[in-house]
Amino acid sequence: MKIAVIGGTRGLGKWIATFLSRKGLDIVVTGRNEVTGESVSKKLGVEYIQDNIKAASIADIVIISVPIDATPDTIREIGPVMKEGSLIMDVTSVKKEPSEIMQEYAAKGVEVLPCHPMFGPRIRTLDGQVIVLTPIKTGEWYDKVFQFLESENARIIVTTPDIHDRMMSIVQGLTHFAYISIARTIEKLDIDIKESRKFASPIYNLMLDTIARITAQNPYLVYSIQTKNIYIKETHETFLNTFTELKDLIATENQEEFVSSMSSAAKHLDDLESALGRSDKAISVLTEEVSTLKKQMGREVGLRHIYSGKVHIGILDKLTPDFLTLTKNKTSTRLKLSNVEVLNNEELLQWKLDNYTKKSYDISGTFPKGCNPDIIANTVNSLQDVVDAKVIDTYQGNQIAQGNVSVTIRYSIINENASIAVEKLLMGFGSQIR
Amino acid sequence: MKIAVIGGTRGLGKWIATFLSRKGLDIVVTGRNEVTGESVSKKLGVEYIQDNIKAASIADIVIISVPIDATPDTIREIGPVMKEGSLIMDVTSVKKEPSEIMQEYAAKGVEVLPCHPMFGPRIRTLDGQVIVLTPIKTGEWYDKVFQFLESENARIIVTTPDIHDRMMSIVQGLTHFAYISIARTIEKLDIDIKESRKFASPIYNLMLDTIARITAQNPYLVYSIQTKNIYIKETHETFLNTFTELKDLIATENQEEFVSSMSSAAKHLDDLESALGRSDKAISVLTEEVSTLKKQMGREVGLRHIYSGKVHIGILDKLTPDFLTLTKNKTSTRLKLSNVEVLNNEELLQWKLDNYTKKSYDISGTFPKGCNPDIIANTVNSLQDVVDAKVIDTYQGNQIAQGNVSVTIRYSIINENASIAVEKLLMGFGSQIR
Repeated sequence: MKIAVIGGTRGLGKWIATFLSRKGLDIVVTGRNEVTGESVSKKLGVEYIQDNIKAASIADIVIISVPIDATPDTIREIGPVMKEGSLIMDVTSVKKEPSEIMQEYAAKGVEVLPCHPMFGPRIRTLDGQVIVLTPIKTGEWYDKVFQFLESENARIIVTTPDIHDRMMSIVQGLTHFAYISIARTIEKLDIDIKESRKFASPIYNLMLDTIARITAQNPYLVYSIQTKNIYIKETHETFLNTFTELKDLIATENQEEFVSSMSSAAKHLDDLESALGRSDKAISVLTEEVSTLKKQMGREVGLRHIYSGKVHIGILDKLTPDFLTLTKNKTSTRLKLSNVEVLNNEELLQWKLDNYTKKSYDISGTFPKGCNPDIIANTVNSLQDVVDAKVIDTYQGNQIAQGNVSVTIRYSIINENASIAVEKLLMGFGSQIR
Repeated sequence: MKIAVIGGTRGLGKWIATFLSRKGLDIVVTGRNEVTGESVSKKLGVEYIQDNIKAASIADIVIISVPIDATPDTIREIGPVMKEGSLIMDVTSVKKEPSEIMQEYAAKGVEVLPCHPMFGPRIRTLDGQVIVLTPIKTGEWYDKVFQFLESENARIIVTTPDIHDRMMSIVQGLTHFAYISIARTIEKLDIDIKESRKFASPIYNLMLDTIARITAQNPYLVYSIQTKNIYIKETHETFLNTFTELKDLIATENQEEFVSSMSSAAKHLDDLESALGRSDKAISVLTEEVSTLKKQMGREVGLRHIYSGKVHIGILDKLTPDFLTLTKNKTSTRLKLSNVEVLNNEELLQWKLDNYTKKSYDISGTFPKGCNPDIIANTVNSLQDVVDAKVIDTYQGNQIAQGNVSVTIRYSIINENASIAVEKLLMGFGSQIR
């Protein structure tokens, strides 16, 4: 089975090609720029064909991942040349128009499955990610794709192109557009954001962070979504009227109407208690992190960079509101607090296990007869940086004093000092190390 | 020194009265409703006087905590009767108008200190809370108040009434107003929020939670802030023009202008990298919590209710996206996930120590001579639910077999089963329990 990813040399298309090729599938990617194409082909170990038509005509599944603007023409170009019994999918953020064009232009016997992955190319697995499918009619390919996504633990939403676009006119259309407008207003009023943060509650700071996040998106993608979703026009107009209405209620000091409008809007939103709970937690995570770190000053701390995934381990010896410094082997690393997350003890141990060289040792010691060697091994295992401790031998005989037994334990360590602790433990219980 | 809290029987005023009276200060509260007043007086152990003028005339500090609308008249009423050398403060969300009226109406020799605490009456301490002071001129009282707030670890911002109001026109004026307008638009378009959440990315869900949170505020307070802050009119108008401009760029398909406006707004916002980092963390806290809990199914879990602070401990035996069930002594408790936070091991132990009855036990066992009793005690202490283990006696003599020593350890447990584990540990190392 061959899968052609049209536009598979960049962005989400490249992510899809990478992901599927790692699953062992036979992938061909297309893309206008030959140099990029050859480089991606080499890096991912997938085939590269510059010509969309050629790639589409030999594939069993064609996934179109080109900018929204280019999607209709790309479908018109490749739909007619596709093999009978093959599948055509798109991954654009609007579903109505591409669905209609795919149905119109796909060759006879080609199954159509419009699709909208609700994530960007930064994710690592599909686990928990939302993917919207808007099948025109469900067929064999639909079942296969569904099962594949299910086995990857994705959250699959099946709906119609119409409902999808209507929901997106709020999800992406209204909120994003309003946030961008807020950012633009702040710019026009020439407010110093950094200064305003000092005045602000944690919820305001989180709001600002969210506004910054949305405004920093790819503006061309935002533009495409705003122009291509047919429901967005109504949404914009309703918002504009609503804002004007509320503004006028304030200007004319109509308290009664304002209060009633605001209360009514609040009631329409779902489960307020949960919303408060979740946002409280989101706010507190940042302040709690700082207090966790304060307690660990001068001690070993593990931090994971939230984007690169890189883990830094060292003694925490400096902490300011924005930065911290870890020191290891006399080298200090300064890290931005907002870019790292603190590993808990379990995560730190797991990371050490995965990354440090484990060294295996055997230790033999005498204990009174009637001892339980497994309990001794478990106790060794509970020491810091010691793993995999188990009894490999017990021995009674001439070389061992009367009433005693020799127990040999094999254990691994991920830190040189841990061996000393093992010896100290056994000797502490009166064992003679042999 | 007597402190009068005008409007101290409700809301933030009541919180201030409670907080200061716990610090041992002599408080008198006023409030129109006599029944409420007497009840608060009894509950907090503070004096209640119905008459503002009477209370203000005997106080060394007067703190005005009445609704914004009522603030000017209240100042005009009580300012003239205040003692020479006393202090007048207000705690309203706008600063320009109250500052001016306080200066005009306060009796001769009264110091004026306008103030805006950026928190509501749900907080427990001032630690880390933002308080804005806009002193007209700094005097003795200012120094005292500043030192007090500093000793409570509050974050104090000193600025002018004008700068305060201008910042607040963004912090509270623009963002809150836009969020309320979004909620009202969603209501008008009759979008099913619960349904839309299914389609959505975690950032959208966090946005919705924030919108719900802001919209659920006291609408009368929002109304007052919007009408009383003189800068808000300009902010509303600038936003309205900006939204209209951006909307028109979309309607006329002016990609170039839209992209340039959005990029320019993004650049004006501060440090994007930190904003992304912080919001990523805020988003991930909710999903991470679920995966932490999944790993603990069938095991003991401690959960703290985020509002009441109540801790629930039990075996986690059910987990759905919204709810979880803990079972203890055959009683099951169903909790809403958004309302609880998971305690880590240290927090759980600390809670048990603070709340369970500790029982103290002594255990004596024989060990080979040359053992280190302190290491044995430390090992006992590392067992789950065991604390305070220490050596209280060592003994060699007739009753102890040749070459052995008897060690007595005193330890405390916070869980009945822990004693069995102590005995098992010592016997596991071959000790004979005496």
